[in-house]
Amino acid sequence: MPHLHMEYTANLPELKAEVALLRMNNALVASGQFSAEHDIKSRAVKLETFRVGTGIGEQGFVHVKLALISGRSPEIKKQLSDSLLAVVQDLGPWPAGVSVQLCVEILDIDRESYAKALIGQ
Amino acid sequence: MPHLHMEYTANLPELKAEVALLRMNNALVASGQFSAEHDIKSRAVKLETFRVGTGIGEQGFVHVKLALISGRSPEIKKQLSDSLLAVVQDLGPWPAGVSVQLCVEILDIDRESYAKALIGQ
Amino acid sequence: MPHLHMEYTANLPELKAEVALLRMNNALVASGQFSAEHDIKSRAVKLETFRVGTGIGEQGFVHVKLALISGRSPEIKKQLSDSLLAVVQDLGPWPAGVSVQLCVEILDIDRESYAKALIGQ
Repeated sequence: MPHLHMEYTANLPELKAEVALLRMNNALVASGQFSAEHDIKSRAVKLETFRVGTGIGEQGFVHVKLALISGRSPEIKKQLSDSLLAVVQDLGPWPAGVSVQLCVEILDIDRESYAKALIGQ
Repeated sequence: MPHLHMEYTANLPELKAEVALLRMNNALVASGQFSAEHDIKSRAVKLETFRVGTGIGEQGFVHVKLALISGRSPEIKKQLSDSLLAVVQDLGPWPAGVSVQLCVEILDIDRESYAKALIGQ
Repeated sequence: MPHLHMEYTANLPELKAEVALLRMNNALVASGQFSAEHDIKSRAVKLETFRVGTGIGEQGFVHVKLALISGRSPEIKKQLSDSLLAVVQDLGPWPAGVSVQLCVEILDIDRESYAKALIGQ
């Protein structure tokens, strides 16, 4: 905890996913909400098969989901999503002629049933 | 919003994922629940590593998740899942000798912490 | 239902994902919580792009999500996550010099809007 999951459509060739993850992890550390930086586990998945709406015209999206152990306030959640969205907005350059939707969603992880273990130091 | 996510097992070679997404997007537009068709963001992921149950015999599945901003009634959610399931059931032909489970799940997106921005027009 | 989803980072080359899924499905059958073994639908995804924290040093993770039709007690959920975590802990050997976080999360599937159909026998 937390877990960050970024999806991005394959028509955004200049999006550097590894840079995006490091910047988002940095934003999460800077939020002061997480006691240990190595608790932040992030991944990015490129979407090769996608469809925005039903019309013509090239469209794409970036969707970030941040999953947190339940219990944080709505205000903290909104601050976290806004800070992640700011990182995503700064990920360009974006391709010309492509309409791109950027979204950040916060999810709760059920605290009581979450189980965790560590291998190695 | 909404976000649609389809997973399908790799043993369904005739499933045309791009056609599936367009048909599901059309079904969502036809539901009248969404003000703008381009708000519908859909993706499909083929599962290369999967396992149904513990027995022998070839099995597969298609799993559709539709994530909606929280606030819709149980009746609306059930209508949406039924209409998406109807689309999925019509995606054949299905391979002979493979038992295929088709599932549609509706999820809520936390409204207050959802953040969004647009790039391009 | 249930749906099991395992993610694992690409720096764990000895993790045998297909073995992991079968063992976890066996653990779920052994829990006695599910009436039919073939209801258990599991998949594994290798994460090629990931980032743990912000520091240096090689790190990885395995994250298992188990989604259940809503209604099970917190005690049952905790038992299920503990039994899945035990399976994951036993998946080694783990690479030397890599710190690996293992996590299991239980999610609820909204019961009323879940839709399902079967193709084949």
